Amino acid sequence: MIKVGIVGGTGYTGVELLRLLAPRQDVRLEVITSRELQGTPVSDLFPNLRGFVDLPFSSPDTEALFACDVVFYATPHAVAMKTVPALLKRGVRVIDLSADFRLKDRALWEKWYKVTHESPEYLAEAVYGLPEINRAKIAGAQLLAVPGCYPTSIQLGFLPLLEAGMVDTAYLIADAKSGVSGAGRKASVGSLLTEASESLSAYGVSGHRHLPEICQGLDSYAGEQVKLTFIPHLTPMIRGIHSTLYAPLREGKDPAVIQQLFENRYANEPFVDVLPQGQYPATRNVRGANRCQIGVCYLPANNMVVVLSVIDNLVKGASGQAVQNMNIMFGLDEEEGLRNVALLP
Amino acid sequence: MIKVGIVGGTGYTGVELLRLLAPRQDVRLEVITSRELQGTPVSDLFPNLRGFVDLPFSSPDTEALFACDVVFYATPHAVAMKTVPALLKRGVRVIDLSADFRLKDRALWEKWYKVTHESPEYLAEAVYGLPEINRAKIAGAQLLAVPGCYPTSIQLGFLPLLEAGMVDTAYLIADAKSGVSGAGRKASVGSLLTEASESLSAYGVSGHRHLPEICQGLDSYAGEQVKLTFIPHLTPMIRGIHSTLYAPLREGKDPAVIQQLFENRYANEPFVDVLPQGQYPATRNVRGANRCQIGVCYLPANNMVVVLSVIDNLVKGASGQAVQNMNIMFGLDEEEGLRNVALLP
Amino acid sequence: MIKVGIVGGTGYTGVELLRLLAPRQDVRLEVITSRELQGTPVSDLFPNLRGFVDLPFSSPDTEALFACDVVFYATPHAVAMKTVPALLKRGVRVIDLSADFRLKDRALWEKWYKVTHESPEYLAEAVYGLPEINRAKIAGAQLLAVPGCYPTSIQLGFLPLLEAGMVDTAYLIADAKSGVSGAGRKASVGSLLTEASESLSAYGVSGHRHLPEICQGLDSYAGEQVKLTFIPHLTPMIRGIHSTLYAPLREGKDPAVIQQLFENRYANEPFVDVLPQGQYPATRNVRGANRCQIGVCYLPANNMVVVLSVIDNLVKGASGQAVQNMNIMFGLDEEEGLRNVALLP
Amino acid sequence: MIKVGIVGGTGYTGVELLRLLAPRQDVRLEVITSRELQGTPVSDLFPNLRGFVDLPFSSPDTEALFACDVVFYATPHAVAMKTVPALLKRGVRVIDLSADFRLKDRALWEKWYKVTHESPEYLAEAVYGLPEINRAKIAGAQLLAVPGCYPTSIQLGFLPLLEAGMVDTAYLIADAKSGVSGAGRKASVGSLLTEASESLSAYGVSGHRHLPEICQGLDSYAGEQVKLTFIPHLTPMIRGIHSTLYAPLREGKDPAVIQQLFENRYANEPFVDVLPQGQYPATRNVRGANRCQIGVCYLPANNMVVVLSVIDNLVKGASGQAVQNMNIMFGLDEEEGLRNVALLP
Repeated sequence: MIKVGIVGGTGYTGVELLRLLAPRQDVRLEVITSRELQGTPVSDLFPNLRGFVDLPFSSPDTEALFACDVVFYATPHAVAMKTVPALLKRGVRVIDLSADFRLKDRALWEKWYKVTHESPEYLAEAVYGLPEINRAKIAGAQLLAVPGCYPTSIQLGFLPLLEAGMVDTAYLIADAKSGVSGAGRKASVGSLLTEASESLSAYGVSGHRHLPEICQGLDSYAGEQVKLTFIPHLTPMIRGIHSTLYAPLREGKDPAVIQQLFENRYANEPFVDVLPQGQYPATRNVRGANRCQIGVCYLPANNMVVVLSVIDNLVKGASGQAVQNMNIMFGLDEEEGLRNVALLP
Repeated sequence: MIKVGIVGGTGYTGVELLRLLAPRQDVRLEVITSRELQGTPVSDLFPNLRGFVDLPFSSPDTEALFACDVVFYATPHAVAMKTVPALLKRGVRVIDLSADFRLKDRALWEKWYKVTHESPEYLAEAVYGLPEINRAKIAGAQLLAVPGCYPTSIQLGFLPLLEAGMVDTAYLIADAKSGVSGAGRKASVGSLLTEASESLSAYGVSGHRHLPEICQGLDSYAGEQVKLTFIPHLTPMIRGIHSTLYAPLREGKDPAVIQQLFENRYANEPFVDVLPQGQYPATRNVRGANRCQIGVCYLPANNMVVVLSVIDNLVKGASGQAVQNMNIMFGLDEEEGLRNVALLP
Repeated sequence: MIKVGIVGGTGYTGVELLRLLAPRQDVRLEVITSRELQGTPVSDLFPNLRGFVDLPFSSPDTEALFACDVVFYATPHAVAMKTVPALLKRGVRVIDLSADFRLKDRALWEKWYKVTHESPEYLAEAVYGLPEINRAKIAGAQLLAVPGCYPTSIQLGFLPLLEAGMVDTAYLIADAKSGVSGAGRKASVGSLLTEASESLSAYGVSGHRHLPEICQGLDSYAGEQVKLTFIPHLTPMIRGIHSTLYAPLREGKDPAVIQQLFENRYANEPFVDVLPQGQYPATRNVRGANRCQIGVCYLPANNMVVVLSVIDNLVKGASGQAVQNMNIMFGLDEEEGLRNVALLP
Repeated sequence: MIKVGIVGGTGYTGVELLRLLAPRQDVRLEVITSRELQGTPVSDLFPNLRGFVDLPFSSPDTEALFACDVVFYATPHAVAMKTVPALLKRGVRVIDLSADFRLKDRALWEKWYKVTHESPEYLAEAVYGLPEINRAKIAGAQLLAVPGCYPTSIQLGFLPLLEAGMVDTAYLIADAKSGVSGAGRKASVGSLLTEASESLSAYGVSGHRHLPEICQGLDSYAGEQVKLTFIPHLTPMIRGIHSTLYAPLREGKDPAVIQQLFENRYANEPFVDVLPQGQYPATRNVRGANRCQIGVCYLPANNMVVVLSVIDNLVKGASGQAVQNMNIMFGLDEEEGLRNVALLP
C-alpha cells in the first residue's frame, strides 16, 4: 500500500490525479492540501469524486505529508521549489507536476519563469520523467519532474527522427494546438467559454515557457543544438494537444523506412501508439487515457516528414504520466491504474 | 469467464460497451457484428480501442453468437425482435439496449414505432432493466430490456415522490435536455456540429417515443395513471442528460422531508447519488460514469418539488446500465467494471 | 445625428451596443467609459471593432456624458442608480440595461439585490422597455429600463395566453436555458470553457433575481397574481436563451385557436416571429438578431400549452432591445440598425 | 437594381449569400435553385431568413436564371462547369464559388478533382477573384472564380513576403485550422457534433485539393516555384480559418521591416486588417465579417517569419468575397453590404 499525498489539489491536474488514484487498491490517499479550501470536502469541489474521495482539503503545512511514501505537487510553478527539499530530507519521494525541476540550467529557468529558484541544488538530481527516454533513472528517482504537456507530445513526435540523425535540425517546426484545460482552473477572462469557444488563436508566439524544456530534450536526442520554431494555439475544446511537427530530412527516404522507424522505436512502449501508415490521430482517441498516439507522413516532393502527435494534456501530458512514473518508481506494473480506454465520443 | 457477443457494434452504445467490457478480466469478447463493416478491425473504426479490442466486425449471421453466454443488442429498434428468439431458444441470454422489449403493451409499441412487432410473445417475459426497481427479476432474466436514456433519468427522479404518493399526478412535467450522442452515430444534417452546436432547441414536442416507456414506469410507481408533459431538448454537448422535473405536491411538506425521502430511497443504490440539500448536479459530474446524480429542491410558495436528475446517456442511460444488468444476471458484484470516476473536466 | 454615450463599455452588452451602433450613419458615439481601462483604445479590447470604433475608453466621470442625447448604461446592477439622476437633471435621456430601474417595488428590489437603492424616487417614472407591451410610454421616456434577458423571452411567451385569460395561473412553469454570455465578461471559474462546456446544470433553483421582474409583468398581463416556477439553466453555448414555458389551460381549446392567438397578438410586431404550427425555434435562428422567435404546441391530453420562446440574450435580451427602445424614443424607424439577418450556421 | 440568381441555395455558402444580399436595397433576389427542395420556401430550411427571403427554391433548370444580371454558383465542384457556358452566352455574368474555374491548368484540375472538365475553354478567361491581387481584372470579369477558403487566408498571409522576394521558398509551411462548416452542409459522420467537437485532427495530410490553387497563386507572387507543405486541420468550431504560416527568410531582417511590409501592402485594402506588432488575431475577431486579420511575428534566432492569418471561411473565404467581387464587377462601392461588425462574443 503506497501512501500518497497531493499538494495543491484544487486544479485540474489535482482532480485528474484523484480520478486515477482513488479507485486503486494499492494506493491510499492520505492527504490533499489547499490553502484556500482547507476543511472543505474534496468532493464538494469536484462532485465526480463523491463516493471515491472522502477527505477534506488540508493545510499545505500539515505534518501528514511527511508520513507519505510519495507526494505529488500539482501546483503552479515556484511553489514546489520552496517545500520539496524538506520532504526529500525526510525520505519522502516527490513527483512534481510543475515546472520547477524540469530544466537542468538554472539561469535558463530563471529567465523564463522570472523568479529566483530557491532549490537550485536539486536541479541536477531531479529526474526528467519521460519514461520513453528515461525509464531506468526514473526507477531510482527521489525527485521526479513530470514533463510539461507540450514537451511530452512534441518530444515523443520528434524523438525517433532525431535519434536516427535524419533531420535537418535548422528548420524544425512544432505547431501545437491545445485544449483550454492547459490554462488551468483559475478564473481568467481569456479562458471563459464566451472568449475561448468558437475561436482559435495562437499565443506565446514570440516565446512560450515550454520552449526551453522542449529544446533541452531535442538537443540531447539529436546530439546537437536544434532550431525549433514552436507556436502554441488555444483551441475550443477542454482536453487534448495535437502537435503537428515538420521535419525536413537531410536526404530523401522511402516512406516505409520512416514509418518503420517510428514503429520500431515505440514497439515496446505501452503508452505510445504508432498508427499504421495512412492513418492519422485525433485528440479524442486519447481523451482520458495515458496514451500518445502518433501518425507519420512523409512528403517526398518537399522531402518533409510531418508527424502528428496527440495526447490528453491532463493525462499523458500531466497526471497520467505522473502516475506512470510513480508505478515505475515503486516497482509496480507500469500500466497499473492506467488501462482505461479513452472516452469516445 | 463470461463469453460476450455484441450485435451492432458500430454505434455509440456499441463502442461504449466495448470501453466498459474490454479491460475486464472476467469477460471475454467473442464476437462483434456489423453487416456493413464485416472484416474491418473494430479499432479501425474506434481508434480509442487500439490495443484493447483485436476483433474485426463479423457478419450478424455468424454462428459465434450462439456460443456466447450473453449477447448485447446495440442496434436500432426493430432489429432485435427479429433474431433474439433464436438466441433465447439456444439458451443464450440477451441484453437488448434497443426499444424492442421495453413496453409491455404491444399495440402501444407498434403505434409509437410504426412497425409490426415480430416477437410479441416475448414482451411479457422481458425484464425491464432498471435495477433500482427491478433487481430481483433482473437476476433471473433471460431477456433483458435496457431502459432508454430519458426514461432512466426521469423515472429515477420521480420514483421516490410517486412511491410516497405525495404528488398531484395531473401536472407532472419533465423538461429534459440531451447531448447529441442520443441521436446516435448516423449521418444526419441535424446532428452536424454546424447545426447542433451553439444552439438549443426542443424536438418531439407533440410526442416522443420515450413517453410511453416513461409513463409505463411512472404509472406503476404511482399506482395510478399520471399525466406527464415530456419535452426533450437537443443541447450542444456530446454526452449527458439533464432532466428537470416539476412535481406539485398534494399538500405542503417540510423541505427536509422531501430531501430525506430521496436519501432514504437511494441509500443502498450504488449508482444513484443524491446530493445534499442545496447542491445541484451538472451532467459533467457523471460523464463516463454509471451514475445518476440527483438534486432536489422544494419551493414552498408554489408547493412545487423540482428534481434535477442527470446521467451520462451512454452509460447509466445505455451501455453502463446494460453492464450493470449483466453483472446482476450473472451473479457478479454489481459494480464490477463500473467503478471508474467521471471525467472532469 | 444622435449623440450617444455608453457607461461601462467593457462587458458583452457594451460591445454588442457598439456592434449595432457603430455602423449607423444617424448615430455618433461620443464617449465610452471604463474606470479600469481609461485611455485604452476600445478596439484593443474588442478587435472586431477595429476600423469601426476609434475611441479610447474614458473615465466614467467625464463631462462628455452630459453632452450626449442619450446615455446607455451597460453596467452591473447598483451602478446606474448612483449617477443616472445627474444625467436626467441635465436633460440627457438614459437607457439602463442593468436591473436598477426595472422593478416598481423598491423593497422587492432591495430584497433581491441586497443593496439599498440610491434613487428610489425614479422607480415610478422609469419606463419598462418592452416595446410589445409598452411602446407608447417608451416614446416619451426619459429613463428607460431595458428588460432582462430571461424576462424578455418568458414574458413574450406567456403574454398572449395571460392577456386572453386562458391559463390556470397556479401552475406556470418557465424552464429556461441560457448561453454563458448571460453571466457577463468577468473572470469566474464557473464560466470557464473547461467548466461550462460539455455540461449542463440548473442554477438559482431556489430563486433567481429575474423572478420578481418576470412576475411583475405576468401579474399585470393576467390581472391577478400568478404562481410561476422559474428554473434557469446554464448551457454550453455562447449566446441564446431558450425558454420552455408550460401553461395548463383553464379549459380545453382547439389547437388552432391557440396558434391564432399568438399570430394575432404579434402580427404587427417587427421583432416577434411566431412560427407556423408544428415548427419550433432554435436559438441559432436568432443569433445576432433582435428577434424573439416563438413556437406553440397544445397538448390536448394534458390540456397543456407548451410555448417555446428563443432570443439572443445579448440582442433582443439586452443591447438590441436597448437600441429598439432608442429608436422609439427618438422617433426613428423602430427597425433602424436592427435589420441584419441572424448568423446561421 | 442588380438582379441576382443563386444556383444551389441549400448549403452554407448559399445561406450566407442570402444573409448578405437579402437586406440590400440595390440587389433583388430573383431566383434560388435546389433540385431536391424545389417548391419549399427557403426560409423553411433556414429560419433565420424568415421575413427576409420570401422565395421558394426553384428547379435549377428554370429560365429565370437567364433574366439575371449575375448568377452565383454555390454548388459542389463539377456542377458549374456544366451550365455556366449557357449563361455566359446569354450575357449573364457568373460568380462561381466552387472550384471549377480556379485553376488555369486543366490537367492539374482533373488530376485533383478526378473528373473530366466539361468547359475547359473557359479556364483561361475566368478571373480569379482575389481582389487584393486582381482588382482590375475583376471589374471586367464575365466569369469570376471565387478563391477557396484556405487559399484566401494562406495567399494573403504569404503575399507581401513573396512579392518582396524575402523568403527561402523551399521551406514554406502552412498549418491551417478550419471550422467544421468548411465541410459543408451535407450529412456525414465525420462532421457530426459527436465526432468533431472536443477533438482536433489533421486531414488531407498527404495532399488536399486546395494545394494546387494555393501554389498557383504563391508561384506567381514569388516569380518562382515554391515548395509548400500544407496541412489542414479540422477544429471544433463552426466558422473560421486560422492559418499559421512559416516562412524562413533568405537573410535576417529587422522585425519592424517585416511589420511595415505587411502594413504597407494592405494599407488601402478595406478587408485586410494588419494588426499592430505584438498583437495576434483570433478567428472570432472576424466571425460573420468579410475580413482577413493578420498578425506577423519575426523570430530572429530562427530567422523565421510566422504569419497568423484568420478569416471567416464562409465570408472572406466564400460568400463575402463573392459579394465583394460582385460589387467590383458592377461598379458599386466595394464595401457595400459588407460593413457589418464581426459577432463577438
